[in-house]
Amino acid sequence: MQSTLLEQLKELYGQSEENALDEFQTFLSFPSISSEKEYSTHLLECADWLMERMESLGFKTHIWETSGHPILFGEDLSAGPDKPTLLIYNHYDVQPVDPLELWESPPFEPSIRNGQIYARGAQDNKGQCFYVMQALRLLKKTHGQFPINIKWLIEGEEETGSEALEAILTQKRQELQADHLAIVDLGIPGPEIPAITLGTRGIITMDVTVSGSSTDLHSGSHGGIVFNPIHALVQMLSGCRDLEGNITVPGFYDDVSPLGENEKGMLYLEFDEKGYLQAFGANPTGGERRLTPLERAWTRPTLEINGINGGYTGDGFKTVIPAQASAKLSCRLVPGQDPQKVGKLVADHLKSLAPEGVEVVVNVHPGSGSACRSDISSKGVQAFSKAYEEVFGKEVRYTYEGGSIPIINALAEASGSEVILLGLGLADDYMHAPNEHFGIDRLKKGALIMALGIDHLQKE
Amino acid sequence: MQSTLLEQLKELYGQSEENALDEFQTFLSFPSISSEKEYSTHLLECADWLMERMESLGFKTHIWETSGHPILFGEDLSAGPDKPTLLIYNHYDVQPVDPLELWESPPFEPSIRNGQIYARGAQDNKGQCFYVMQALRLLKKTHGQFPINIKWLIEGEEETGSEALEAILTQKRQELQADHLAIVDLGIPGPEIPAITLGTRGIITMDVTVSGSSTDLHSGSHGGIVFNPIHALVQMLSGCRDLEGNITVPGFYDDVSPLGENEKGMLYLEFDEKGYLQAFGANPTGGERRLTPLERAWTRPTLEINGINGGYTGDGFKTVIPAQASAKLSCRLVPGQDPQKVGKLVADHLKSLAPEGVEVVVNVHPGSGSACRSDISSKGVQAFSKAYEEVFGKEVRYTYEGGSIPIINALAEASGSEVILLGLGLADDYMHAPNEHFGIDRLKKGALIMALGIDHLQKE
Repeated sequence: MQSTLLEQLKELYGQSEENALDEFQTFLSFPSISSEKEYSTHLLECADWLMERMESLGFKTHIWETSGHPILFGEDLSAGPDKPTLLIYNHYDVQPVDPLELWESPPFEPSIRNGQIYARGAQDNKGQCFYVMQALRLLKKTHGQFPINIKWLIEGEEETGSEALEAILTQKRQELQADHLAIVDLGIPGPEIPAITLGTRGIITMDVTVSGSSTDLHSGSHGGIVFNPIHALVQMLSGCRDLEGNITVPGFYDDVSPLGENEKGMLYLEFDEKGYLQAFGANPTGGERRLTPLERAWTRPTLEINGINGGYTGDGFKTVIPAQASAKLSCRLVPGQDPQKVGKLVADHLKSLAPEGVEVVVNVHPGSGSACRSDISSKGVQAFSKAYEEVFGKEVRYTYEGGSIPIINALAEASGSEVILLGLGLADDYMHAPNEHFGIDRLKKGALIMALGIDHLQKE
Repeated sequence: MQSTLLEQLKELYGQSEENALDEFQTFLSFPSISSEKEYSTHLLECADWLMERMESLGFKTHIWETSGHPILFGEDLSAGPDKPTLLIYNHYDVQPVDPLELWESPPFEPSIRNGQIYARGAQDNKGQCFYVMQALRLLKKTHGQFPINIKWLIEGEEETGSEALEAILTQKRQELQADHLAIVDLGIPGPEIPAITLGTRGIITMDVTVSGSSTDLHSGSHGGIVFNPIHALVQMLSGCRDLEGNITVPGFYDDVSPLGENEKGMLYLEFDEKGYLQAFGANPTGGERRLTPLERAWTRPTLEINGINGGYTGDGFKTVIPAQASAKLSCRLVPGQDPQKVGKLVADHLKSLAPEGVEVVVNVHPGSGSACRSDISSKGVQAFSKAYEEVFGKEVRYTYEGGSIPIINALAEASGSEVILLGLGLADDYMHAPNEHFGIDRLKKGALIMALGIDHLQKE
C-alpha cells in the first residue's frame, strides 16, 4: 500500500519538478537576512510570497504581527477532530552573507552546479521549508485533502534567536495546540544515510571577569607583589576540568539523564577521524576521553571557553600586568540539566577557585535553553522513521544534534505536542558560510518523506 | 671635612638655583620622544643643547653617530692616571605622552606646582641627568677641576631599548674604560629615605600559540569532539605555577643565587600594604607566599602572563571554539639565571603540558637581559652611601629594582667597571604616565649627593 503511494508521489513530483525548481529559486532570491535592519522590507516581501503559497494550498493563513519580523501561521483542520494534528515548524530568514568575496556565485542569485543549488538559505532553512510545501501539494493531489490536520508555522527570526516567537507563544497556545511538532531544520550524517535526530543540547552562557588592581601595572616593579589577574583566571578555568576531559565542577553531571542502552544501540555513532581531520584540521581529542567523539558531542554536557582576553595582545611586547582579565564561557546541556542551575554551579565553582587578593565577577546570562529529546517510540518518530526507510530504501538510523535550538522546547510546551526532529541537511552544506548549497535530490527526498510521514500519521 | 664641603656646595647651589631652574625647564621643553619618528629633529636639537653644556664644563665631547638617535660622550681625564675614573650614564630621550588629555599642563611646557616640576622627562631621566650636570658644575667651582676622571655618556634611545648603544659598545671599549659605572636612573623608597639600589632584575620574553583546528568551529556541533585550544592554553599556563605562587617549571630556580643574610639585613623591606592598596587598588598576594612582597619583587624571579587572547571577546556572545589561542609571557630574572636558558626551560615545560591533539608553538624572543647586582662593599657603593647619608642626615638603606635595564650589564662589561645604581626617583613621580613630575628639593639633593660621592671616590 505504501509503496503504491510512494510510486504515485514520485510520479507526481516528476511532473512538477521543473516548475518547482524555478519557484524554489524565486524563494531563494529574497535576501531575507533577519539580523540586518536594512533587509526588513525583503523579509516582508518574502513573507508575502510565502503566504500566497500557503493560501493557495488551502490554509487559513494568519500573519502574527510582532515587534520583529512577521510570523506566518496557516491551519487546515478539514481532516476533522478524529484525526491527529501536526504542527510543522520552518523559518524563512537566513544568515548574513559575509565574507561576500568567498561566494562563487552571488548569494541571492541561485545557481545550479553539479546537482546542487547554491544560494544563502539553500539548506537553512528555505530548502527544507520548500520541500515541506511540495509534500503538502503532493498530498493534496493524492488525497484530495490533507489526511490529518496540519498547522504550519514559518517564522522570520530563527537566525537571531526567535525572540518575537517566544514572546507570543503564551498568547497563541490555543491556535498552536497539536499532537505532533515537526521541526524540519535538522540533518542526516551522510547523503545515503537515512536518520532522524533524537535530541538537541541545551545551552547556558556566562562571562567571568577577574580584577587584580585599579590600573595596569608594570611587570618589573609589581611582578611578584600583585596577583596577576590572568594567572588567577587561567588557574580558575583550568580547575574546571581534569586531564581526562571530565568537568570537575561539583554537581555538574548530577542531573544528567543517561541514554538507555537500547537507545544507544540504535545511534549512528561511527566517526570518521580522517574525514574530520581533513575537513577541520582537528583531532577528536576533546571532551571525556573514555567516550567516543559522537557520544560526547550528542549525549554529554560540555563547558567551553568561547573567548579569553587580558593584557597586551597586539604586535610586539608590553611588560604589563593588566588590571583585569576576562573570559566567556558556555555549557551545552543534555536532558535533565536546568540551564540556570548549571550556570550557578559553574559560577560558584569559579568563585571558589579565586585566589586571595583578586575580585571575581561571574555574570550568568538570562537567555538560555534546556536540551530537547524526543521519544524514539513515539508515534511521530515511528511514522517518519518508516518514511525515511521507504524513501532511502535503507534502515533508518538515529543521531543527535550537539547544537541548541532553544525555541523547540518552548514551542512543544505551548502546543502540548511531542517533538519530531527532521531534516536532510549535511555537515558540508556550508550553512552559515559562503557557498551554502542543497542537493536537488534531497529536495525530492524531503518532499517524499514529509508526504509519506504525514500519511502514516493518519493511521494512529 | 665633608661637612665643610657640603656646606660649601649648598651655598654655591643656592646662588645658582634660580638660573638652574630656568635652564632645566629649557631642557624639559625639547619633545625628545625616541619612539616616534617625527620627533627625530627634536632629539637632535636636545642633543646639541646638551653637548654645548658638556663642552662648557670642560669635557672633550663626541657625538657617536649610529643608526639611531645620537649618543653623547664626554671625557675629562685631567685628574690624571693616578685617580680613578667614573663613567656616568644618563639618557635624554623620553616616553610618549599619550593620553594627552590627562595632563594637567602640557607635557613639554614645564610647570611648577607645590614644589614639583611637571613635564614629560621631569624625572625620567632629564631631572636625574640635570642634577648630575649641576653636581659637576659645583665640583668645578669647589675644586677648580674634577677630583677624579669623569666620562659621561648620555644616550637617546633608552626608552626604546638602547639598541644603537648596545650595537656600538664593542667598538667603543677603549673610550669607555672606567673603574666605576654610575647609572643615575633609579629611585628611593620614600622622599625622606636615602637608599641605593643594589640590583635590577633581568628579563626574557616569549609567546605561545596553541592551535586546535584549521578554522573556527561551532561549539554546539564540535563541543566535546575537538580540544578547545583555549582550554589547552589555560591548562598549560596553569601548570607553570602552584597554589603557593611557586613556579613549577622544572629547573626554573636552579641557578638563582640567593641573597646573603648580611645583604638581606640591610635591605629596606618595609611594605606599606595600605598605601599599596590606595595607590594601585591591589593586594600583595602574588608571587611566592612564604616571602614578603619586596623580597619577591626584588630578589626572586617571576613568570608573568602579560597578554592572553583567543576566541570571541567583543560585545555579546559567540559560541565559537577558536582555531587558535595565544599568550605572551615574560620572566623577570635574578642573578645567576641565564635568560635564554630560562626561556628554553619554560618553553619545554609548556610543550610538555600540551594535551594530545593540539599543536603548540613557543617563540622565545632574542632580546633579553640578565639581572644586575652591585657589590654593597665596593668602593663605589660605599662612597655614594656616605654621600646619601650626609645629604639626608640619615642612615642609608638598600633596595632593589624589580624592573630591568638590560643595557647596564653590557655597559659594565664593555667599560670593565663596577656598577653603582643611583637616583632619587619616587614610585609616584608618574614616570611613563601623564603628569610626570620631579621635586625641586630632589634636584638639589641629587646635585649634592653626586658631588659628594665623586669627591669621596678620589680617596680610594
